Amino acid sequence: MDLQMLTDLYEFSMANGYYATLPHDRQARFDVFYRRVPDNGSFVIAAGLQQVVEQVANWHFSKENIEYLKSLKEFSPDFLDYLSKIKNSCTIQALPEGTPVFPREPIISISGPLIEAQLLETFVLNIINHQSLIATKSWQINHAAQGRPIMEFGARRAQGPDAATYGARAAVIGGCTSTSNLQAASQFHIPAAGTMAHAWVESFPDELSAFQAWAKVYPNKISLLVDTYDVLKSGVPNAIRVFKQARANGHEPVGIRIDSGDISQLAIKARQMLDEAGFPQAKITASNALDAHVVKSLLDDGAPIDNFGIGERLITSSSSPVLSGVYKLAEESVNGKWIPTIKVSDSREKVTIPGNKQVYRIYSNDQPNKAIADVIALADESITTPLKVVNSDPTATNASQILTNFTAKPLLKTYLTAGQPAKVETDVFKIQQTSRQLRAQLPEASKRLVNPDRYPVYLTTKLADLQEQLITKAQFAEEN
Amino acid sequence: MDLQMLTDLYEFSMANGYYATLPHDRQARFDVFYRRVPDNGSFVIAAGLQQVVEQVANWHFSKENIEYLKSLKEFSPDFLDYLSKIKNSCTIQALPEGTPVFPREPIISISGPLIEAQLLETFVLNIINHQSLIATKSWQINHAAQGRPIMEFGARRAQGPDAATYGARAAVIGGCTSTSNLQAASQFHIPAAGTMAHAWVESFPDELSAFQAWAKVYPNKISLLVDTYDVLKSGVPNAIRVFKQARANGHEPVGIRIDSGDISQLAIKARQMLDEAGFPQAKITASNALDAHVVKSLLDDGAPIDNFGIGERLITSSSSPVLSGVYKLAEESVNGKWIPTIKVSDSREKVTIPGNKQVYRIYSNDQPNKAIADVIALADESITTPLKVVNSDPTATNASQILTNFTAKPLLKTYLTAGQPAKVETDVFKIQQTSRQLRAQLPEASKRLVNPDRYPVYLTTKLADLQEQLITKAQFAEEN
Repeated sequence: MDLQMLTDLYEFSMANGYYATLPHDRQARFDVFYRRVPDNGSFVIAAGLQQVVEQVANWHFSKENIEYLKSLKEFSPDFLDYLSKIKNSCTIQALPEGTPVFPREPIISISGPLIEAQLLETFVLNIINHQSLIATKSWQINHAAQGRPIMEFGARRAQGPDAATYGARAAVIGGCTSTSNLQAASQFHIPAAGTMAHAWVESFPDELSAFQAWAKVYPNKISLLVDTYDVLKSGVPNAIRVFKQARANGHEPVGIRIDSGDISQLAIKARQMLDEAGFPQAKITASNALDAHVVKSLLDDGAPIDNFGIGERLITSSSSPVLSGVYKLAEESVNGKWIPTIKVSDSREKVTIPGNKQVYRIYSNDQPNKAIADVIALADESITTPLKVVNSDPTATNASQILTNFTAKPLLKTYLTAGQPAKVETDVFKIQQTSRQLRAQLPEASKRLVNPDRYPVYLTTKLADLQEQLITKAQFAEEN
Repeated sequence: MDLQMLTDLYEFSMANGYYATLPHDRQARFDVFYRRVPDNGSFVIAAGLQQVVEQVANWHFSKENIEYLKSLKEFSPDFLDYLSKIKNSCTIQALPEGTPVFPREPIISISGPLIEAQLLETFVLNIINHQSLIATKSWQINHAAQGRPIMEFGARRAQGPDAATYGARAAVIGGCTSTSNLQAASQFHIPAAGTMAHAWVESFPDELSAFQAWAKVYPNKISLLVDTYDVLKSGVPNAIRVFKQARANGHEPVGIRIDSGDISQLAIKARQMLDEAGFPQAKITASNALDAHVVKSLLDDGAPIDNFGIGERLITSSSSPVLSGVYKLAEESVNGKWIPTIKVSDSREKVTIPGNKQVYRIYSNDQPNKAIADVIALADESITTPLKVVNSDPTATNASQILTNFTAKPLLKTYLTAGQPAKVETDVFKIQQTSRQLRAQLPEASKRLVNPDRYPVYLTTKLADLQEQLITKAQFAEEN
């Protein structure tokens, strides 16, 4: 796919309009951020940066792209000529992938020529919204599973091939250990996992011969799907027969998978049967319409499940399938001078945060591994204790605060400088590890799956004052 | 992307197992069908066939694919050698894209060598589940819009690039008239649409100069976004000023777009202002978090909206983001003879329908354009009046029925014969038209957005009897 064409027409219409009406050296900065967390969580796991950086570093329009744009009869020849010659020269600052990011914090900030930055909007939002959504759902399910390995196997229900493949990548960033999807496994170096489907069992005259055939072909991967007929009457007894034969032949079985029925009760009884038959090490994998709250409920029930396989509810984040990240103008250069901008709205919650910013995670000096708040500041401010701050959430009651005795760690890093890429982490398991470490620093209450405590995100008073000035100015402009 | 690698590992594990244990000429038939309609609708709009046929016709494994599979250390050298040499030789029968399809009816039926057919499962389900889901959501929204044009513009919130692009294709199949996504527009010959974002308005000192600049660049496309500041106090009055200037210069404006606030009240007042200013032809486009029930409510309110722009709730089908289509073995050839197969389950609803089947849409001879039921039959049955049938829905109360005085139209057509493609319709607007005609034949009550009447889908008694025999046989096998 020509990713530079994964762009809404109006981006080109605006770019052509900017080209016709504004100085060609006009620069702009756009921030990507979101306002609401899927599933009423308190944070999102940032993901998708690698694909954004790779695409922007290689962004250019082919002859075919230009021909197509010309066929729309909407753009000036000068503009099309300009497009045919440019490479993207934007600068990208971003949170490292895997970072827990809170509402209103910039995930990515893109600055550069207004036209180039504008034309990236659709693509950047598509990639970041999608992968961050799935990474977030993945951490929620992994959080519920309390360290038990989770295989992602939703490819068949994903919203298209990319959703399956980038989705598997994001699922690993959020904590999954493997994927069934070989395209994702090979492209992102993720362990491939899976054993058999019901179709295998049905392709043999009966369940026992299906299991026996499997054990013969895969003596070191005897993991049997036990619910094609009846889990407790047929599946588990047949599995145990095959496990005994395998052990007699010197092969230790892996375990069983239960994919239907009342997983909790079936797992408890199957565990008992396996233990009594002498297979206490055989693992029980559960699958079938699992999600974070189902996994939690199963484990609360005491269901002896060792691994989970999770499909559609992870790969589509079906309980909350949209991350509504936006791409908003934060400042622009007019006659060579950067001027912060704001988007006002009837709803105070929708007012943007102006300017070139940095996001700091604030650690108490008494507990250096515990993050206590985030502070959004102007990029050129120095963050020193004591620091007077204002809550970034206009609906919060604790409107202002003085932070003392802290260490502030800047989170936004530079990944592309005027089109030249810096190193971006491509090892998804390293990203997973970073994400786990950063989450461990957050208050436990902010990680609750239901009604999490709101982690405070503050603005420095300098930034809050700038925002207020611009709101007033915009309201004044409106009234005149 | 290597679409032949968009395949779950277990498909390859099973294929390698089949290769090791079953005769290599074993043939199989798999049906794709679903059990539940998204949003509790009564039918799904079939979509995705073009991509399936194109991919299967070109399906083969590259040297890199084989190397990767080898690296998994799970497959026999013979099997990998076999894989490296095969081209897909399956036969595909399917409902034409755009066909309204009911629960349990095969959307696609794939027959051929067991291994080849098994290896298509993940890819085929991914494509069909995704596109059919979005086509279905699209028809629901279009149905609510009662013929008003709908632009699809959800690329930024789609679940990855393919979801945006194939999703736009599916949205057109379901009735949309245009897309904002230029990748989809150019690839599938869909009109591209869109005008300006809030960023355009913010890039100028004030709203009026932003509108004026637009009108200068696009004198024939003066469609203005009026909600950056205040729709009624600022947006519409400024739009009217620019419309008047345009008309004085000989250009008739297109209209306005409202993207926030109470769309219904704003549209009513904006319409009044536009009419009074002499612009009764100027169109009002509404956008912002629209879905079928919101569109219906706006129109029930009498909101004078001419066009809709619909984003995330269409492109992700967010209210019901998964179509759970499955791929189930229907028959297999053992020693050259086709034997129907069944998958039983504790839940009667999950029992599959065996054999090689045809789906007939039944039209009353009294009202030849009105479909009254569908009948699933064995492919070699002749369907003549009177026809005794059994309800395919095991939960239905009207268990059996005699159909008389009807004409039966077979719906499944052949698109690939032993790997050789037949013509598949690629014109999305022709598919849209076919879909509209087929939907017009369905009872109005089955198209209700809330609590639609269940359209009857029957099995012939011959097929129902075969299903019962196989259920009994499976239960007997289980107990022994």
